[in-house]
Amino acid sequence: MKRKSPLLDRIYNTNLALHTDLYQLTMAYGYWKNDEHLTSAVFDLFFRKNPFKGGFAISAGLEYVIDYLQSFTFEQDDRDFLRTLKGNDGEPLFESAFLDYLGEMTFDCDVDAIPEGRVVFANTPLIRIRGPIIQAQLIETALLNIVNFQTLIATKAARVCLAAGTDPVLEFGMRRAQGIDGALSVARASYIGGVAATSNVLAGKIFGIPVKGTHAHSWVMFFGDERAAFEAYADALPNNCVFLVDTYDTLNGVHHAVALGKKLKENGHRLAGIRLDSGDLAYLSIEARKILDEGGFKDAKIFASNSLDEHIIASLKQEGAQIAVWGVGTKLATAYDQPALGGVYKIAASKRGGEWKDTIKISEQAFKINTPGVHQVRRYFDGRYFAGDLIFDERSQSGHLLVDMKDQTRIKDLSAHTFETLLKEIFRDGKLSYETPSLDSIRRTRKNDLERLHPSILRFLNPHEYPVGLEENLDKTKRELMSALRKKNKVIL
Amino acid sequence: MKRKSPLLDRIYNTNLALHTDLYQLTMAYGYWKNDEHLTSAVFDLFFRKNPFKGGFAISAGLEYVIDYLQSFTFEQDDRDFLRTLKGNDGEPLFESAFLDYLGEMTFDCDVDAIPEGRVVFANTPLIRIRGPIIQAQLIETALLNIVNFQTLIATKAARVCLAAGTDPVLEFGMRRAQGIDGALSVARASYIGGVAATSNVLAGKIFGIPVKGTHAHSWVMFFGDERAAFEAYADALPNNCVFLVDTYDTLNGVHHAVALGKKLKENGHRLAGIRLDSGDLAYLSIEARKILDEGGFKDAKIFASNSLDEHIIASLKQEGAQIAVWGVGTKLATAYDQPALGGVYKIAASKRGGEWKDTIKISEQAFKINTPGVHQVRRYFDGRYFAGDLIFDERSQSGHLLVDMKDQTRIKDLSAHTFETLLKEIFRDGKLSYETPSLDSIRRTRKNDLERLHPSILRFLNPHEYPVGLEENLDKTKRELMSALRKKNKVIL
Repeated sequence: MKRKSPLLDRIYNTNLALHTDLYQLTMAYGYWKNDEHLTSAVFDLFFRKNPFKGGFAISAGLEYVIDYLQSFTFEQDDRDFLRTLKGNDGEPLFESAFLDYLGEMTFDCDVDAIPEGRVVFANTPLIRIRGPIIQAQLIETALLNIVNFQTLIATKAARVCLAAGTDPVLEFGMRRAQGIDGALSVARASYIGGVAATSNVLAGKIFGIPVKGTHAHSWVMFFGDERAAFEAYADALPNNCVFLVDTYDTLNGVHHAVALGKKLKENGHRLAGIRLDSGDLAYLSIEARKILDEGGFKDAKIFASNSLDEHIIASLKQEGAQIAVWGVGTKLATAYDQPALGGVYKIAASKRGGEWKDTIKISEQAFKINTPGVHQVRRYFDGRYFAGDLIFDERSQSGHLLVDMKDQTRIKDLSAHTFETLLKEIFRDGKLSYETPSLDSIRRTRKNDLERLHPSILRFLNPHEYPVGLEENLDKTKRELMSALRKKNKVIL
Repeated sequence: MKRKSPLLDRIYNTNLALHTDLYQLTMAYGYWKNDEHLTSAVFDLFFRKNPFKGGFAISAGLEYVIDYLQSFTFEQDDRDFLRTLKGNDGEPLFESAFLDYLGEMTFDCDVDAIPEGRVVFANTPLIRIRGPIIQAQLIETALLNIVNFQTLIATKAARVCLAAGTDPVLEFGMRRAQGIDGALSVARASYIGGVAATSNVLAGKIFGIPVKGTHAHSWVMFFGDERAAFEAYADALPNNCVFLVDTYDTLNGVHHAVALGKKLKENGHRLAGIRLDSGDLAYLSIEARKILDEGGFKDAKIFASNSLDEHIIASLKQEGAQIAVWGVGTKLATAYDQPALGGVYKIAASKRGGEWKDTIKISEQAFKINTPGVHQVRRYFDGRYFAGDLIFDERSQSGHLLVDMKDQTRIKDLSAHTFETLLKEIFRDGKLSYETPSLDSIRRTRKNDLERLHPSILRFLNPHEYPVGLEENLDKTKRELMSALRKKNKVIL
């Protein structure tokens, strides 16, 4: 694709190695200068709190991560740019030999990750990277950027779809989405989360997601007369008639839709539905339903849009709103009530002198203390529901006792349950060893997983907390390390 | 650029004509089928409420819009995708002849817009598109997607920088930003809004924005000993030393930084500063300042980060925090407290039978009623401050009486003031007639404009409302049209 546009060309035809924070590069340089760059380290990507005050999240973004890692190389022009950076003495920040090293570097980490579409929870490692610290460090920002956003949106979509029950939800948010691939990622992650279709045509082309849409207010305003506008639309697109009825007066609009519906029927077509986009959606949908039914259009569906989210949908349903299809835009596409997932990427161990050594941070804030080790996660299953996720250190013996991360006296014995291992092998020595499932298969995974969560965990208000904790020995190791570090740094609380 | 990665390649090497909602294409098809596609129409892009409960916004995104419009063509594979779309009877949604028409179509609208970096307000048209309705309609979603997001972020950045006063603000948000170009657009719009630098290296390469960064907690954790970690960093990057001091114990960390600072000094380098990323930033910065000063490092700056926004910065400053550089991440990059600007794109007039005809929508919600006409905006200046923005219809005589949009009895006479015209010519008949200023020039525009806003408008809490209104005759036309339409549609309130 050749573009006439210099800016989008620069943005869209770019290599992504520099899609990172500068401090990753200064640290990479520091490791290289200290000859520690090839030292192996393990990093975990996880978030500390379930989004939206909810009980769960839906993992998403791994396919992008895989692609990013497969094309992870520093091109000549990337290195040329890095060469221009200066320190506070006006001297170059990086030696030429380091930039040459970056140019020759190939990705050769091990990557394990929870596949897309799984239900996941706070503190569970979603991705584990093991390899030369220089590489594991450089990729941090891109991984967080991708996984934070897509997991956030897949989760929001799952919540919206839970509220809608069996009604289809359409993702309509691209005009308010944060950027061009913001909108694309939203369409993809929302589809993983459960929406039936998107308005985003490019997402249809690129990802094969079903696309939907009919007309806007501007169509009616252009004709200046609603009846004439509907008629012109029905003449052109008789097989795609969902009339937006609220340009002038909503219930008048429904009558106009019924009139056109009769004409469509006479010509062998059908009125698919009407859309409400303003006003009291509960009242208007109930009145509109009566008009449609009386007009002989019991099959015509009422679509609704206008700042919907899971809470408004739940409330409208409770009020008996006669809405069959939910168009959800801004609140979904930006995860309006919590527009960022606070995912982090923490070093958990490094291999010094042939031995893995745990690393930990003891911050001012207790919840920011990470868990050391080389982690894997077991998910236990009680036959009907998931019973708990156990984080253990795969280097040592581990049992089935789950220790609560906030209260170590709360211990759950999971030994009676079957389990599966959550982190799957994605890359070995930089080679891809995983086949990305189709979006439809990811959707089935999400559906199956949600059915295995107890309803109390799915609740929007004060959900039950799903048990996620450390395996007994790992918990002990972590606390010993904390005490030792606190003593060493003379932090007596 | 060849990529090994099929997904990012499909996403990043794409044409953007399909970066739109499907309903734009079904309406385009409807206009074409009704032989109305070449009818001229005028659309305004504007937002209805200043973001963040603030008194102003900063316009941004126009350079992207220009690029998008310059490359607006439907490629073969775009049309091939559209050919696959089906209606509810299983028949194709679009006739082949229409897709051929799209393939031959070239952009030939007139575009007028407010340049980037200007202070703008609710209801002011930011962009006006005039041309064949098929084109003006098809570009709606992309324009909204670009302008909504970048204007939102530029505004947020301007607010954060106002709170920081003369202290530099660094944009650190890419790990939480909504997608890859989400992060890039954030870096660009934040720079327009006033931040001094970004951590986003790709933004440095693409836009020439200064990039900053030093090291993370992982650097200290890897070495396991803070003093050793600082020493290793200082050895490698003596000209870029801002030590992150809160991995184990913050004030101990400051002492370690002072020790390294002395060593740096001995070797002809300098301790640029320290960074605090957790805990009570007011208390810790005051204590850290004392330690640095006593250690002989009065010039070393204290950087702070950790969920900062304009409100927290203002509060920290009020408490006497000794912070000199502010690293702002998530709250800026996602515009956390309001992650979407509700910009809309409304048809205001169309040319039927050689005559421009006003179009209006009378919705259930009064604030959603648009203003008909072909708009231009005059900004009046009282010598020191901007005095008001007057929206007028450029087709008719207009005076200098500004009618408040919520209360038509409030009228402001601006005839004593000088004025400038805000919407500048960008495209004529699809040809670019505007030269995009440099980012640094856009930053100067923003700075000049903010200095011309009365301080009461800049206030975060209950800001004074800057006068934006309709020119007297336009106001009259709008109300006459509303009454006529209400009568016609039998809406008597």
